[in-house]
Amino acid sequence: MGKISYIDNITEWINDFSFKHEIKIRFSETDMFGHLNNTIPFTYFEEARIEYFNSMGFMKDWTSAECGEMPVVANLQCDYLKQMFFNDKLTIHVKADHIGNSSVDLHYMGTKQDGSICLTGRGTIVQVSKATGKPVPWTEDMKRSMLYTVLEHS
Amino acid sequence: MGKISYIDNITEWINDFSFKHEIKIRFSETDMFGHLNNTIPFTYFEEARIEYFNSMGFMKDWTSAECGEMPVVANLQCDYLKQMFFNDKLTIHVKADHIGNSSVDLHYMGTKQDGSICLTGRGTIVQVSKATGKPVPWTEDMKRSMLYTVLEHS
Amino acid sequence: MGKISYIDNITEWINDFSFKHEIKIRFSETDMFGHLNNTIPFTYFEEARIEYFNSMGFMKDWTSAECGEMPVVANLQCDYLKQMFFNDKLTIHVKADHIGNSSVDLHYMGTKQDGSICLTGRGTIVQVSKATGKPVPWTEDMKRSMLYTVLEHS
Amino acid sequence: MGKISYIDNITEWINDFSFKHEIKIRFSETDMFGHLNNTIPFTYFEEARIEYFNSMGFMKDWTSAECGEMPVVANLQCDYLKQMFFNDKLTIHVKADHIGNSSVDLHYMGTKQDGSICLTGRGTIVQVSKATGKPVPWTEDMKRSMLYTVLEHS
Repeated sequence: MGKISYIDNITEWINDFSFKHEIKIRFSETDMFGHLNNTIPFTYFEEARIEYFNSMGFMKDWTSAECGEMPVVANLQCDYLKQMFFNDKLTIHVKADHIGNSSVDLHYMGTKQDGSICLTGRGTIVQVSKATGKPVPWTEDMKRSMLYTVLEHS
Repeated sequence: MGKISYIDNITEWINDFSFKHEIKIRFSETDMFGHLNNTIPFTYFEEARIEYFNSMGFMKDWTSAECGEMPVVANLQCDYLKQMFFNDKLTIHVKADHIGNSSVDLHYMGTKQDGSICLTGRGTIVQVSKATGKPVPWTEDMKRSMLYTVLEHS
Repeated sequence: MGKISYIDNITEWINDFSFKHEIKIRFSETDMFGHLNNTIPFTYFEEARIEYFNSMGFMKDWTSAECGEMPVVANLQCDYLKQMFFNDKLTIHVKADHIGNSSVDLHYMGTKQDGSICLTGRGTIVQVSKATGKPVPWTEDMKRSMLYTVLEHS
Repeated sequence: MGKISYIDNITEWINDFSFKHEIKIRFSETDMFGHLNNTIPFTYFEEARIEYFNSMGFMKDWTSAECGEMPVVANLQCDYLKQMFFNDKLTIHVKADHIGNSSVDLHYMGTKQDGSICLTGRGTIVQVSKATGKPVPWTEDMKRSMLYTVLEHS
């Protein structure tokens, strides 16, 4: 595994994850080269991220019609460390690496059933106003929820 | 080509199409069996249907926040007559086969560049209220638009 | 629930299902009308069908490089009985309704957590040669496996 | 537009693109927040990349059964600069930023019809052996093709 810009110390980086979500590679997610198509891990990251936000109660608010805020993805990246195939079961790990005023830098790690790392990734999520598209600061409660899951494993 | 329940006279059925939309098969739409995955033609049907509704000005209304109605798919079916592959250019033809009070039965035909038919399909679209989900009758103008495209080729 | 052409007796039809597979609606599977996009249930049908074939050992053969056969979808249809939303948990039920020489007519039923039916569907799968694309008859073992799951509940 | 790590001089970076590919945002590519889902631009990058490789004759080789090599994605990233909506027409620009021994670093830029930049991205593609998965060096011809498209605009 070569150097990845957003990972300083790989052992610490791995140990800092606590939240995880299981997925299974669908047949329709493969391509004619016989393996998982490269566009699909971003769907897995979204699914895992949403379960992560769900676990803290954020999604319920954001998806209600009354709520004035929603999360938007500002950037996203993925490193593919191993080929993945139909029917593989992957565990997608998520953590908040850095919490800003109205944004959070989430990191992702995908592991195969033998524990080997097949995917790493990161991306910034910003909470914005549905009406104006402008950033909306996290509440103290939201920060605490994310911070807690950061500290939980330290 | 075997008997397909929604096609009476195949020659007339083919001749009745006038609206068409071109698509090209994406790499990410293939699967590990090397051909177009079976779930994708429904995306093509949707894309062609929307261009069809666009051409009559329906989509602009339905997707505006002020508009109280939206189209929903009540049923959908597809017959796969030939294997389709990466990079194939397909023409998706759409027509209104039967116009109801608040619904329309659309028919679809996909052809390859050599003119051969690779897909046929049909499905009912219902105009419903965004608030209640209940059917909302077409206006006379909407019926006329769809009827015109039905009659144009008769 | 209106009359659906492939369902004779709805009570018997429901009781005949035994195989089932759980899915959860992804955020990326919704569309701007706020509900599950109409193209996605076919992905669920494929996922459930593959788990069904998996349970009888068929998929392992078909996806191995040595195996000369693969399943292709000849036709597919879906009736949407209820709107479905982000985070909904659905159970997709699958059964072999009719077993032909080299094909099988599979039926599908999707239910919500309250037990209500939100999707029904059917489609023909044909076993073909990877080399020629021509139909290849089921072995007696394959027929027996599918027949067993048909009879299991009768 | 904030600082993006893979862009040194934004004016030069924009000017260096010559290859481009048009796409139109599909209805099924939106999500319940009303805009383009974040996972989709990677599909656009793949589509544009493949057209770029097509234009140099690479895809035809890679997708033929006789060819022993295929391209794999080693990493991929995307910055979302503007919200994108149903029916928007985007131009996806592609260039080879750096050509290695068996890999190439491709850069992507997505523009709206008013010329504004809505997406930027990059990713490494490696040519590997279908049999072993090990990197296979570019031929001199392949390097020349990619270099030419790099130099064409300098």
